[in-house]
Amino acid sequence: MNPSPRELEQLVVDLARRACNASQRMSELSTRVKNDWLLRSAERLEAAKAGILAANARDLALAEKNGVSGPLLARLEISEAKWRDMIAGLRDVAALPDPIGRVESTIVRPNGLQVGRMRIPLGVIGIIYESRPNVTVDAAALCVKAGNSVILRGGSEAIEANLALADELRAAARETGVPEDAIAIIPLTDRAAIDVLLTQDAFVDLIIPRGGPGLIRKVTEESRIPVIKHDAGVCHLFIDASADPEMATAIAVDSKVSQMAVCNGLETMLVHRDACAVALPRIAKALFERGVEIRGCERTCEVVSEAIPAVESDWAEEYLAPVLAVRVVDDMDEAIDHIRRYGSDHTEVIVTQDYKNSQEFLRRVGSSTVGVNCSTAFADGFRLGLGAEIGISTSKIHHYGPMGLEGLTTLKFILRGDGQLRE
Amino acid sequence: MNPSPRELEQLVVDLARRACNASQRMSELSTRVKNDWLLRSAERLEAAKAGILAANARDLALAEKNGVSGPLLARLEISEAKWRDMIAGLRDVAALPDPIGRVESTIVRPNGLQVGRMRIPLGVIGIIYESRPNVTVDAAALCVKAGNSVILRGGSEAIEANLALADELRAAARETGVPEDAIAIIPLTDRAAIDVLLTQDAFVDLIIPRGGPGLIRKVTEESRIPVIKHDAGVCHLFIDASADPEMATAIAVDSKVSQMAVCNGLETMLVHRDACAVALPRIAKALFERGVEIRGCERTCEVVSEAIPAVESDWAEEYLAPVLAVRVVDDMDEAIDHIRRYGSDHTEVIVTQDYKNSQEFLRRVGSSTVGVNCSTAFADGFRLGLGAEIGISTSKIHHYGPMGLEGLTTLKFILRGDGQLRE
Repeated sequence: MNPSPRELEQLVVDLARRACNASQRMSELSTRVKNDWLLRSAERLEAAKAGILAANARDLALAEKNGVSGPLLARLEISEAKWRDMIAGLRDVAALPDPIGRVESTIVRPNGLQVGRMRIPLGVIGIIYESRPNVTVDAAALCVKAGNSVILRGGSEAIEANLALADELRAAARETGVPEDAIAIIPLTDRAAIDVLLTQDAFVDLIIPRGGPGLIRKVTEESRIPVIKHDAGVCHLFIDASADPEMATAIAVDSKVSQMAVCNGLETMLVHRDACAVALPRIAKALFERGVEIRGCERTCEVVSEAIPAVESDWAEEYLAPVLAVRVVDDMDEAIDHIRRYGSDHTEVIVTQDYKNSQEFLRRVGSSTVGVNCSTAFADGFRLGLGAEIGISTSKIHHYGPMGLEGLTTLKFILRGDGQLRE
Repeated sequence: MNPSPRELEQLVVDLARRACNASQRMSELSTRVKNDWLLRSAERLEAAKAGILAANARDLALAEKNGVSGPLLARLEISEAKWRDMIAGLRDVAALPDPIGRVESTIVRPNGLQVGRMRIPLGVIGIIYESRPNVTVDAAALCVKAGNSVILRGGSEAIEANLALADELRAAARETGVPEDAIAIIPLTDRAAIDVLLTQDAFVDLIIPRGGPGLIRKVTEESRIPVIKHDAGVCHLFIDASADPEMATAIAVDSKVSQMAVCNGLETMLVHRDACAVALPRIAKALFERGVEIRGCERTCEVVSEAIPAVESDWAEEYLAPVLAVRVVDDMDEAIDHIRRYGSDHTEVIVTQDYKNSQEFLRRVGSSTVGVNCSTAFADGFRLGLGAEIGISTSKIHHYGPMGLEGLTTLKFILRGDGQLRE
């Protein structure tokens, strides 16, 4: 399919308009209908598995031919584990409580007026993503459960799998009474389709971009619709002077090695100068044994002989690979200054046994997830107990950090009176 | 002062950069310092009252000369009542609990990890407003109490009063240890200053426009920074079949007449056909007695002989004047369809004695404030018990409806562990 610019624009505007019209019915759907759709989608996907994996294989073959490399190819593949997670995800979202209609924190004013806040859907959510085809299913599941229409726009490299997945989601909608227009997928790989989508502020309430820095920058600069970024993770671990070396080693290895190609992976380790003698060599040894390259500041290289000297650009790098930048700092202030300067507002963790330092780090670091004595891997909607995750927001507006169902809703004020006047 | 385009750009960029640098210190200010600044500002403003009112008088004289009309001129004037409210507002905000650092809803995960969410400031907030000079003080008070830097850009018609007010706020900052750069005012009346501000996404986290539709549209279309609109209020009252005529009359009069030039004033009344015989004539009589003109649909004009036939544009009009559009509808569906089509997502109220209809209206109407049996005037941060109000958001993203201190903050995740790993 190779439409003219005008046909392309009409197609996208039409999808957006229909998604917007459907959003009013979506906001009034019962929980039962939404859950029926989730469970039916899981059944249909299972039944269509062979065809979907074949579509994914075609995407993978083309990507390899185009020279796509290791972690990126891994993101594109629907592995058996990812398939299981995707199907389980639909059933998990069905089991989550419906946020819509929930009334929070009702108070009674002195004049007897009851003031509450009720959760309602946002309306229409556009998801612009790259590579991972499972986002098609995960994102649609969360948007629909939260009563929204969704417009999906995956990467061109995953188009075959995305269309095959969306076909089943839309068929399940027809079968269960969910408006089919509420689950829209843009069937075009042309990037101009994104340009058109970003101007549909009359129909679309929120844009969530998930992908590389180029995509994020483009969307942020051009969108006339509010954007919640799911940006790079340049995550830091700060090994404080009082850190237990054994715990510090386990956390560093877990944060760096257990998953490489994810945004909550560790990219830079900051080490208090008083942790250089014992903790740093021990951590470095454990990382080397697992094949991690260390790019260190001058002081790091003095202690760790195998380290490669870091250059300025290493401090801002999201490697997504077995490489770790390491810098020795004099104190907490220097660590926090480094994080503010080079970090991406994603996830930072301190390893410490000092009460005051733990409090100070939690309070002063402004990133979306800030931790004490745990792996950076916990910056994840599932591991934090949200039950699901649409992504990890590095935008402070609306929702900051791992974002589940609630982030896809808003609150309206509801007033119950018996004739109250301004007077 | 008449700077070149380049000087203007440098001035605005410099203000924004300095506000951003100051925002890190702002986020760590103690509650005591922020409250000292609020109370000192109140004292300084009281001491400088004569000069500020003289500046306001100069603004008013120029506006009258330029032919500015009734309600707009009323917004520009710092009346004695507004002055008292402004000063009291500073003291009220000082008395409010500090939202920053508050940890909400900590849970413990099965692995022992404690997961909480801590309120933090947004960073730098740009307020673009028109006419009302008291916004200078109200907005700065709320932004600073919530730990943010603020960049104020008032209307050219209020420039003298705005600069005089901001002088005192900045002097109070110097006296109390609040970074002066955190309270920035753009001293230029040139609209090009807004264009520059809206591109400073490297330094500014949120833009709040408060003003007429022209300003709102310009800001929404051009901003590269997230925007929370404080847009027009085309507020509706729906008189249900079961409405008590006396209560309906009192609520209609209060919603329309008690304040005309405000966004929560009533602009369109929808009347169930079964309320036409008794309630409608009674309400119409009470409104006529108070000088309100009624522009009615055909069925309204049959019942209310003094009504003027409404034209299509009346249904979307924010009159801010003694005019009310009135339409008779067959049922709740027609009322809700009308609100969705012509409303502005601001405030809608039903008057009813019917339980089911009250629930349905609260649930189905998606506006930012939805009420039963009360005046539309309650769409107001003070009257709802928020303690203060930066405005009334008609954007669903981040905060919807009357917005107090909490709307100027966000939540980060904080994790407290003792060595938890992904495993």
